[in-house]
Amino acid sequence: MPQSRTRIAVVAPASRIQPALAQEVAALAEALAPGRVELVFHPQCFLTSGHFAGTDEERAAALIEAANDDGFDAVWFARGGYGAGRIAEQACAALTPAARRKTYLGYSDMGFLLAGLYARGCAVAHGPMPADLRRSGGEAAVARALRYLADRAPDTLEPHLDGKSAAFNITVLSHLLGLEIEPDLTGHVLMLEDVSEHMYRIDRAMLHILSQRRMRGLRGVRLGRVSDVLPNEPDFGEDEEAVVQRWCGRFAIPYLGRADIGHDAGNKIVPFGEPR
Amino acid sequence: MPQSRTRIAVVAPASRIQPALAQEVAALAEALAPGRVELVFHPQCFLTSGHFAGTDEERAAALIEAANDDGFDAVWFARGGYGAGRIAEQACAALTPAARRKTYLGYSDMGFLLAGLYARGCAVAHGPMPADLRRSGGEAAVARALRYLADRAPDTLEPHLDGKSAAFNITVLSHLLGLEIEPDLTGHVLMLEDVSEHMYRIDRAMLHILSQRRMRGLRGVRLGRVSDVLPNEPDFGEDEEAVVQRWCGRFAIPYLGRADIGHDAGNKIVPFGEPR
Repeated sequence: MPQSRTRIAVVAPASRIQPALAQEVAALAEALAPGRVELVFHPQCFLTSGHFAGTDEERAAALIEAANDDGFDAVWFARGGYGAGRIAEQACAALTPAARRKTYLGYSDMGFLLAGLYARGCAVAHGPMPADLRRSGGEAAVARALRYLADRAPDTLEPHLDGKSAAFNITVLSHLLGLEIEPDLTGHVLMLEDVSEHMYRIDRAMLHILSQRRMRGLRGVRLGRVSDVLPNEPDFGEDEEAVVQRWCGRFAIPYLGRADIGHDAGNKIVPFGEPR
Repeated sequence: MPQSRTRIAVVAPASRIQPALAQEVAALAEALAPGRVELVFHPQCFLTSGHFAGTDEERAAALIEAANDDGFDAVWFARGGYGAGRIAEQACAALTPAARRKTYLGYSDMGFLLAGLYARGCAVAHGPMPADLRRSGGEAAVARALRYLADRAPDTLEPHLDGKSAAFNITVLSHLLGLEIEPDLTGHVLMLEDVSEHMYRIDRAMLHILSQRRMRGLRGVRLGRVSDVLPNEPDFGEDEEAVVQRWCGRFAIPYLGRADIGHDAGNKIVPFGEPR
């Protein structure tokens, strides 16, 4: 294992976190790897502006500051919610070369930023966030994220990685199609997950995603967990795998099976592009 | 008033309706304009396949049959729900010249079809459907639709029509962006409405819609009713008009005020393109 110290900036481009959570995650990091990981929670994480952890300007400024600071090895997104899409184009346009010398980690609503940062040549990965500590078994998820950022520990990675990959929340990917931040996923295996949606909405988002002509260039699709599905009236008649398989079949995109990602403590890391 | 007989085919590209509803709507049509309107409910309206009024093949076949039948003056969509998007590209590809000699009316999930039919040169309008009879005051909505289809009665029209217009459910429009059925809305006033969404989802869909570069060509945006908004945790801090005004402002698209459309009995008719 490399013994260098890893400096990680934490910012919250969507919803806020509580200071107590930051303290617990910092303590966990110190317990896991004494003296080897430094977590710096940007004060913006604790701001409040309606739904968000500060105004769009405050959230974008914190992200840009962290991304362009050569003193950090990584930017870790504190939690999801909603709000990253509102600052993604602006933040991605303000990146300097220092932003491309670090790794970005998060998932769910952070897909807006994973997309835009990857499109601009940054190293991004889909995986757990500090707020996952509050999940059942969440300590393992947070530890996995820290071990990936500090050591690239192989057992933190999604086990099917092979060639170029990318991972997204289905609903978030549907909402970034056509934006300037949309990355070119040609030749990638696309891993997908979602939470708290009706099955008809999963179906509608898959229709939207895979109907895009440029998605014909995907090497394949893998389905992570679709959890806490809301009741469908009437019953939808298909589960999430049947839905995704059907849409893949419609457009002759290979369906490759399940992926070990999702809104849960088991959520494995998916680095975008070639495995790193 | 013109005294010719108007023949209207009713099909259900999304969810099914009950035969009793069809009988009540037919009786209302006869009472409103004795001998002048003939409603033909396609048997497909009453089929069931999981979530839908029959399989994709059955729903597409009924729509194509009605659209290409020169014996009908109009195709009226029975209700929304979800499912029109699953057959829209296939149905629109199968249209013959007869399909361009009639009018199509519906809203909500039917936006997938209004889009595709308008893109192919058909006369489409956003307005009430037979299932609206079950709403409070719904008889007025159904009567409005019938008077539009039979007589183009001017008082059925959305009162702000001026130049080219189009109207969509916000969530549905977000999900058809980039599809082959997406119409060119350059020079149009875009009227928008929605129902039963969280405010953060309205914001996210507006982000998605207005961030598309081609939307810079809109002549303006008008906001219809956004009803039954689901609780936002925490409070979103803005209402729907503030949300839409902010996104219009971001992209320098004129916000023109409110539109008299929505998921309610007051829903006025918006013919796409120039007023007809």
